[in-house]
Amino acid sequence: MVSKKMKEMIERSAALGAMFTEGKRLKELYGEENVFDFGIGNPNVKAPDAVNEAIVEILREVDSLQIHGYTDGSGIPAARQAIAESLNRRFGTSFSAKNLIMTVGAAGGLSVICKVLIDEGDEALTFAPYFGEYDNYVINAGGTLLAVPPNPPSFLPDLAALEERITAKTKAIILNSPNNPTGVVYDAETIGALAAVLERKEKELGTSIYIIADEPYRELVYDGAEAPYIPLYYHNTIVAYSFSKSLSLPGDRIGYLVIPSEVDDFADVAAGAEIANRCLGFVNAPALQQMVVARCCDEQTDVAYYDKNRLLLYEALTSYGYACAKPQGAFYLFVKALEPDEEAFCEKAKKHGLLMTPGKAFRCPGYVRIAYCVARETIERSLPSFQALAQEYKN
Amino acid sequence: MVSKKMKEMIERSAALGAMFTEGKRLKELYGEENVFDFGIGNPNVKAPDAVNEAIVEILREVDSLQIHGYTDGSGIPAARQAIAESLNRRFGTSFSAKNLIMTVGAAGGLSVICKVLIDEGDEALTFAPYFGEYDNYVINAGGTLLAVPPNPPSFLPDLAALEERITAKTKAIILNSPNNPTGVVYDAETIGALAAVLERKEKELGTSIYIIADEPYRELVYDGAEAPYIPLYYHNTIVAYSFSKSLSLPGDRIGYLVIPSEVDDFADVAAGAEIANRCLGFVNAPALQQMVVARCCDEQTDVAYYDKNRLLLYEALTSYGYACAKPQGAFYLFVKALEPDEEAFCEKAKKHGLLMTPGKAFRCPGYVRIAYCVARETIERSLPSFQALAQEYKN
Repeated sequence: MVSKKMKEMIERSAALGAMFTEGKRLKELYGEENVFDFGIGNPNVKAPDAVNEAIVEILREVDSLQIHGYTDGSGIPAARQAIAESLNRRFGTSFSAKNLIMTVGAAGGLSVICKVLIDEGDEALTFAPYFGEYDNYVINAGGTLLAVPPNPPSFLPDLAALEERITAKTKAIILNSPNNPTGVVYDAETIGALAAVLERKEKELGTSIYIIADEPYRELVYDGAEAPYIPLYYHNTIVAYSFSKSLSLPGDRIGYLVIPSEVDDFADVAAGAEIANRCLGFVNAPALQQMVVARCCDEQTDVAYYDKNRLLLYEALTSYGYACAKPQGAFYLFVKALEPDEEAFCEKAKKHGLLMTPGKAFRCPGYVRIAYCVARETIERSLPSFQALAQEYKN
Repeated sequence: MVSKKMKEMIERSAALGAMFTEGKRLKELYGEENVFDFGIGNPNVKAPDAVNEAIVEILREVDSLQIHGYTDGSGIPAARQAIAESLNRRFGTSFSAKNLIMTVGAAGGLSVICKVLIDEGDEALTFAPYFGEYDNYVINAGGTLLAVPPNPPSFLPDLAALEERITAKTKAIILNSPNNPTGVVYDAETIGALAAVLERKEKELGTSIYIIADEPYRELVYDGAEAPYIPLYYHNTIVAYSFSKSLSLPGDRIGYLVIPSEVDDFADVAAGAEIANRCLGFVNAPALQQMVVARCCDEQTDVAYYDKNRLLLYEALTSYGYACAKPQGAFYLFVKALEPDEEAFCEKAKKHGLLMTPGKAFRCPGYVRIAYCVARETIERSLPSFQALAQEYKN
């Protein structure tokens, strides 16, 4: 009696969802200390102390009716203004509250903006590998998500392949840099070239093509890499941001959309986002969390911790014979499976206590994602298992 | 460039959304002290002290990674179990964690369960007047919401009219008692009769017809009224609940779905709800708020405060000649406008500083909703305006 659409969604979502419960199952089977769960992007670095301090301050300073009351559908004006000013300091932009819509995480923001931009029969494009939920946000809006095939080993976007796929139906390009699952950071040259393609196609087709920049990993960059701020490169860019990674608040479900005044049909897009927030059932982003991030948006997570995890795991795995692009961002390694069927590889890995996500979940079979946002000790203790797994394929 | 669906949604949602900003506009125009905003159901009774105390305790007692980390898609098992046990104590049910899905308020829960149950071309039914966002949740799932016409002056559900409208396409009946906007509480006899109709139609059509019981106002009842717990009356009942009113936490966006084990296809519906939570972009209900309501689910709001508001306003308005069913629940009066076009009536009311919601927003023209979840003083000071407005129609 469940809807047909739902049955399809259950199938599509199974891989990522299963990761959440699979770790628990394996721990019961092999014992907690023998399972190394690299399946989920749940930050192991705790939130900056300023977050919990801000909560306590807010409880003390702000009227209870305001802390717990409805906010405007687009969020608390002062919170939006504070975040806009923080962005302006960082990127030289000139946003104000009217350009910010507070959302239930980046996921909520993506779902909302897809609903705003995409109609029945419309298309969105993205680059494989990509976060599988993108399909659901686009499908929920009535559209179809088409993927540009993976471009290994660099996993940089294949712009020629993108251009071929853009038609009058193309409403949006979902872009994710630093990338989940590859850890690749798109540099300024790449973003500039992408902008040129889209400007050309907009002119040719007489349409608006929006970039939806999914940026929860913006601050997690290494080796001096920088993620260019895409609204500075392309006029029709909408940013979906989350504090899940930058402040380690994934469970708090707090993020925002940036809708620059320069985007085509700005007034309708901004009004639409506020209304879609309500129509989809979000109503408003959690009020207390809006106040917290307004106070903490300049706080930083311990990027050095992830960086050490990255180098430790990358160097060990490559020394054991695994092939992997050295990631410059996010907290994932995207590793070539040691046999063509990466799901079979993941099953073998489980016998060594190693839990990884099959590339299929990201529409990129043959690879696995290893989330290194875990305790250092987990990585250290897992290395013999990774080595034994590699050895199994050499025998 | 905004999607066509979105443009329709903007129109449908305009009335309720406008309420939020209209109050601000009028206050700027007439001065804060001269505007009486009865437009929005934003509780004026503050959250029980236990809520903020629980937040501080959680910050002290629980590991920060857990407070701010992702939870299971269906919510923290211990929170779901605590709420299930609270329900069991109150209603003699035998729910456990597996029957509860934590959601981003009742709105999030309704959006999720519509996505689970309703397919392209399916229908849901509800009784006018009703909360206008129901349309959007059903439409987002690909279905159509049909309304049984209003049944004044009692505004009890017209079951004969319901039965006529049930077809093989009917997947769900959205039921809201205590009712927004009428304040009517459906008694046990009404719920029993409704259950009989649905059982008869299920048998006749060979389909499953679910009641989706939207119950944010369950605890707000007066004059000794009780809202029957609908799962005890009808096997295919799913409850959408919010702590928005019972704990005055509307901005926190925290609620749950109850999916009893007895509903048809229980396993699929429960799995579907968890996945729809993710696919729509909610991911999980805010983690900290889940922990708070688990600790506070037996706390009570100050119902007596609303009751005094209710009696004060009801008695004054009826004495001035307004016609209105005496509400036994929620915090609204649903009053017959003093002219057939209630939007014109609302415009005249604004000139007296009175802000009310036109019945059109609830698909029931000719009436207005007055939300009395405001400060007592607001009501007291507004009475001369209500009287002057009535007088205007007598001249």
